[in-house]
Amino acid sequence: MPLRPLPPGSSELTGGFWSDRRRVNRETTIPAAAERLEEVGTLTNFRRAAAGETGGFAGKLFADTDVYKWLEAVAWEQAREPSDELATWQTDASALVAAAQEPDGYLNTHTRLALDGTRYGDLEKGHELYCAGHLFQAAVAQVRATGDRTLLDVACRFADELCKTFGPGRLEGIDGHPLIEMALVELYRETGTASYLELASYFVEARGHGMLTVPGHHGPAYFQDHLPVRSVRTIAGHAVRALYLAAGATDVAVETGDHELLDALQATWSTMAESQTYLTGGVGSRWYGEAFGDPFELPPDTAYCETCAAIASVQWSWRLLLATGESKYADLIERTLYNAVIPGVSLAGDRFFYVNTLKVRHNAFADDQRSAVGGRQPWFGTACCPPNVMRTLSSLDQLVATSDDDGVQLQLYAPASIAVDLPTGRVAFEVATEYPWHGTVRVRITATPDEPWTLGLRIPAWADSHRLTINGLEGPLRRVWAVGDEVVLELPVAARRTRPDERIDSVRGCVAIERGPLVYCFEQQDADVVLDETAAVAGELVERERADLLGGVTTVEVPGRDGPLTAIPYYAWANRTVGPMTVWIREDA
Amino acid sequence: MPLRPLPPGSSELTGGFWSDRRRVNRETTIPAAAERLEEVGTLTNFRRAAAGETGGFAGKLFADTDVYKWLEAVAWEQAREPSDELATWQTDASALVAAAQEPDGYLNTHTRLALDGTRYGDLEKGHELYCAGHLFQAAVAQVRATGDRTLLDVACRFADELCKTFGPGRLEGIDGHPLIEMALVELYRETGTASYLELASYFVEARGHGMLTVPGHHGPAYFQDHLPVRSVRTIAGHAVRALYLAAGATDVAVETGDHELLDALQATWSTMAESQTYLTGGVGSRWYGEAFGDPFELPPDTAYCETCAAIASVQWSWRLLLATGESKYADLIERTLYNAVIPGVSLAGDRFFYVNTLKVRHNAFADDQRSAVGGRQPWFGTACCPPNVMRTLSSLDQLVATSDDDGVQLQLYAPASIAVDLPTGRVAFEVATEYPWHGTVRVRITATPDEPWTLGLRIPAWADSHRLTINGLEGPLRRVWAVGDEVVLELPVAARRTRPDERIDSVRGCVAIERGPLVYCFEQQDADVVLDETAAVAGELVERERADLLGGVTTVEVPGRDGPLTAIPYYAWANRTVGPMTVWIREDA
Repeated sequence: MPLRPLPPGSSELTGGFWSDRRRVNRETTIPAAAERLEEVGTLTNFRRAAAGETGGFAGKLFADTDVYKWLEAVAWEQAREPSDELATWQTDASALVAAAQEPDGYLNTHTRLALDGTRYGDLEKGHELYCAGHLFQAAVAQVRATGDRTLLDVACRFADELCKTFGPGRLEGIDGHPLIEMALVELYRETGTASYLELASYFVEARGHGMLTVPGHHGPAYFQDHLPVRSVRTIAGHAVRALYLAAGATDVAVETGDHELLDALQATWSTMAESQTYLTGGVGSRWYGEAFGDPFELPPDTAYCETCAAIASVQWSWRLLLATGESKYADLIERTLYNAVIPGVSLAGDRFFYVNTLKVRHNAFADDQRSAVGGRQPWFGTACCPPNVMRTLSSLDQLVATSDDDGVQLQLYAPASIAVDLPTGRVAFEVATEYPWHGTVRVRITATPDEPWTLGLRIPAWADSHRLTINGLEGPLRRVWAVGDEVVLELPVAARRTRPDERIDSVRGCVAIERGPLVYCFEQQDADVVLDETAAVAGELVERERADLLGGVTTVEVPGRDGPLTAIPYYAWANRTVGPMTVWIREDA
Repeated sequence: MPLRPLPPGSSELTGGFWSDRRRVNRETTIPAAAERLEEVGTLTNFRRAAAGETGGFAGKLFADTDVYKWLEAVAWEQAREPSDELATWQTDASALVAAAQEPDGYLNTHTRLALDGTRYGDLEKGHELYCAGHLFQAAVAQVRATGDRTLLDVACRFADELCKTFGPGRLEGIDGHPLIEMALVELYRETGTASYLELASYFVEARGHGMLTVPGHHGPAYFQDHLPVRSVRTIAGHAVRALYLAAGATDVAVETGDHELLDALQATWSTMAESQTYLTGGVGSRWYGEAFGDPFELPPDTAYCETCAAIASVQWSWRLLLATGESKYADLIERTLYNAVIPGVSLAGDRFFYVNTLKVRHNAFADDQRSAVGGRQPWFGTACCPPNVMRTLSSLDQLVATSDDDGVQLQLYAPASIAVDLPTGRVAFEVATEYPWHGTVRVRITATPDEPWTLGLRIPAWADSHRLTINGLEGPLRRVWAVGDEVVLELPVAARRTRPDERIDSVRGCVAIERGPLVYCFEQQDADVVLDETAAVAGELVERERADLLGGVTTVEVPGRDGPLTAIPYYAWANRTVGPMTVWIREDA
């Protein structure tokens, strides 16, 4: 791989935008989830399975995963800043998971409680390997973050059982909901057990031959089972499934050196990024099947843009960034984090969007808990999104930078402290910035070898210009650095108008406002006219720093046909009253 | 009611466009359905239920209705032009239905075969009253058309059982899929049994109090159970359910003289017609929940526009036309029949669309039997649409005209023979026209009383002008008519450009072509450029009569940015190869 992730602890967010979100996540979101997981019976499922009971399973059949994702978040928080509460949660819940494991390694409380232990009877919908995958991910996170091997032992025993059960000449099947692929590769990376990688590779290759359908409900494409992964060029079907599979297939391609597969995944990513991704980075155009649309099918009002799909998109892009070193992947990660992941949680950290629409009409009507029209919800019947946000925010500092033998690459701009051991010696630096509100990023070198190395600074695709100085002068970023050297990058974050590709029907003749990495939106509550019926016009965009508003934002005033229209960052919408909103607004020529 | 339907046999299509479609329906569609109903086991379900067997139910749990709708079509065909084959089908299938009836009147082969006879255990999804409703409709059609009382006796015994079972103080429940409401009113009209009307009224009133939900799948609005019918102003949820309910509620309002309810239904219809109906008359903007969208949510590419919903829309509009006499209802009926019902069946009569999209993209991908992208299908797992088209085409002559004490109103223009007894005596006339291809409609009086009466001629909303002469002179349509009088109506059917309401996002900046009552579309196979990427421009629309094309159509050549673009009537699309298509095309200013 051209780029490597930094070891846990090597990059630390030290303040600013993301640090604030991470604090709310730690102080409000994760503790509230602990309560919910008790309230709705998700933890009780493990207690009852451990006690050998049957019947009385609570929640959806994949409810185990809510605990696993939450445990992942708990582990990252515990690693960064230990607390007794976090330690207790980690110890108790991990012990509970371990206790629910069956003697041969298998583990799934739904199978135990609701199916009398009968396994793999419904690969389309059963989610057994999906649950296993989330367990493995939590186990890897836990050991990497905290050194605690409780879940890793559980995971390896289960993975060993899977290796005995699945594969050519054994049970030749795949799970309806991918995830196991990337989880097995991560487990392989952690343990070195080759059979885990082999099984992941088998699951990737076995897919695409039409095994999975639910007649009358879903065809094989819903399950990404319509075409072999290496033949796909346009991502299709259930968005979260498609993206977890793509991420897992990327892992397999990288670990097995399968260039053909990696090329196919890159081509598929490009089609997605260019024609199946919303301005926000959100993906999944269709409620029906929670699915990707055809290229350029990107309606703002009926966008599904599941919070989990945005997270899965980040995971896939991250893997391709490492596999190729191309910054377009980091560009999409940044866009997606700011505008498709964090809109999924309230500023207070206690409520969640499942669906992240780009437009709510004046007369919109909600008949579904997932509909953004009804505002963020404290939890969901299918509670996949909230703990997925938790683990993403808790592990976010790992996405800030990457490294290679020649240096370190800053991928996200945030106040941070980075320290990496290069082959030539230890490199460390501090990043100071008020990004995304201001475009100045200062990097001060605090440790460096005497050999030259490169400080990589991503110039975001949205930046049509930039200025870079080193100790006040222009110069190359590959050099022999000295402690105290200061690099200043100036990015043009001023508000700008963005116009859509004319092949996207539903926003033709519209304009959106962006500012730096942030997508903006208009909320009815800030407008004196009916949003649905007005239009933007030419003229100056007026920015205002509003420390008092929505936790502190910069608003953008847009000249409108019927008077100025105030835009706020999209991630902050529906945090006052919930009403009509639009990212794209009609534009009078 | 201001207007009355004509008695069966009083209006007869004698040739032309609809007569041709009806002939194909009779000669190909109905016989093919007889084969399918055997092949897929739908008739066998009745045989096995009649034999007292259990288990082995074939198809979806509402499969009985496919037989009922087909029997309705068979009855209308048999009435107009008897044949041994039709008589045998009617006799045999009706006997089979009667034999499957349980001793107390209940009848449902799924309940018998799959549920061991347990009734009403799942009102949300069980479709038991929905099946009963289709039985009652078939029974009424059979007795009205042919005088055969076999199904009517079955229906009344079942309806009596329902009256004993459901209602205040008895089983207080409603069916997840409306239809029983209008079926019970029709049965009341046929038999005069007041309890049928009372039960229909109960079902309408009991709805809207949140009894019906399927957590995690559908909220109450899916079932129209979110608001009492008389409080609704915007139609919502599953489109076919919503429209069958609206039609039944209209029947109840008319029969009980409930003006408040009728007013609510008219207001709801207006919102639907103005902001929730496609240019084609198709309804149901969402695949998810097969549902109506919010007002102005009318994306062409992801339109659901189920063929059954179009038929249900015609049924509702027909009831409001009779209840009010307002021709806007007939306008929508005409638009819907030409552009949303008959696109649902191939010109050859042997294949069907479930979903009637208005746009197929260049790279569109189908993963569902219902998707129009895959072309019309010979039958469906859920086979509601094909027999619904059959009964609609077989009974279409009943929609041609209405009457009141003062005269007769022509609602659809087609070669026809009409004879009605007015209070003052018998009125009869012949209609000659080549509508919809040509705009001239000639009406020749063949019988008339000596008293004055009014010949009503609907001027379609799309007609921005018209010319009317009586025996060559201008004059009023209320007069003392004489045999041989000839009325000539000239409607301006020339091709025209139609531009959308600017509140509809997805067709902003686009234009559609209409000609008379027909909506046109562009198929990729007629274009030298990629449809997705071109645009229409100003200039003359060139019409060509093409007897050789698609059973004989008039095409319209539209000036395009990259050369002329040929439009064909939308109903005829996907009858050559199936490929990209669009009703709306971008327009260069």
